[in-house]
Amino acid sequence: MTEQIIQQIINAWLAQNKTVTDFFTKYGDEAYLKEVAPGRNRPIYLLGHLIASNDGMLPLFGLGEKLFPQYEAIFTKSPDKTVADIPSIATLKNDWEKLNNTLQDHFSKMTTADWLSRHSAVSDEDFAKEPLRNKLNVLIGRTNHQSYHRGQINLLNA
Amino acid sequence: MTEQIIQQIINAWLAQNKTVTDFFTKYGDEAYLKEVAPGRNRPIYLLGHLIASNDGMLPLFGLGEKLFPQYEAIFTKSPDKTVADIPSIATLKNDWEKLNNTLQDHFSKMTTADWLSRHSAVSDEDFAKEPLRNKLNVLIGRTNHQSYHRGQINLLNA
Repeated sequence: MTEQIIQQIINAWLAQNKTVTDFFTKYGDEAYLKEVAPGRNRPIYLLGHLIASNDGMLPLFGLGEKLFPQYEAIFTKSPDKTVADIPSIATLKNDWEKLNNTLQDHFSKMTTADWLSRHSAVSDEDFAKEPLRNKLNVLIGRTNHQSYHRGQINLLNA
Repeated sequence: MTEQIIQQIINAWLAQNKTVTDFFTKYGDEAYLKEVAPGRNRPIYLLGHLIASNDGMLPLFGLGEKLFPQYEAIFTKSPDKTVADIPSIATLKNDWEKLNNTLQDHFSKMTTADWLSRHSAVSDEDFAKEPLRNKLNVLIGRTNHQSYHRGQINLLNA
């Protein structure tokens, strides 16, 4: 039963990934360089931002180093249109796919105990007090974070 | 353990509700009548849309009739700016709170078996084939749906 519920949470994550992937195959590359609304982020930036954010789950879950550690400075710490050289949409789409495959592979091997254990940004002491700050909570949060930005990229007037 | 995971899913839902509530207390009522981007929905419409969508969980979960059945025609079946008379932001904020309290009250009483049972839009026969189409799945989906539109209302240039 617990396994089933965890699978439902993973399925929601996978469904979100697919919708983002589909969005970035809808138009030619140039379209993703337009702002989603005047003065707001461009889809190319939001894709990089989602990669940077999701990539953080690898170290948070003790699964290894980030695949694209250089993206944090560009897509999380810097606002859009402030970094002169950002990766192309083709590069980001490849990286997105590579990251999703890596995460999905790890997720499929994680046990219930793994999902309910603390993530690396919580100390043992804090986790004893707040046992809901587990890896599953991070996945639920990142899925909602992705929906949030998906709502924005879908405003694109391509 | 299963109860804990279900609670985490409910917590994510409650956290989303709170962020939407907070957004609608940030500005004067007039601000919510501006489009989030040129030609796009207004926050007043999106709040009504979220009420209409979340309200649907009452019948879907067998918890009773919708509190605001009249909102489906205005906020789901009709696009924004096509219905002349829509409720005021003050009315919608009250209805949002009333609906959230009602749902939260029901959710707190639901058992694991309740959450894992089929929702009323799935037949017994289909549910036998696809057991993940349960009430919990609807809640996960509605939470993501809410994040999606929250990303959009946060683009408002108030």
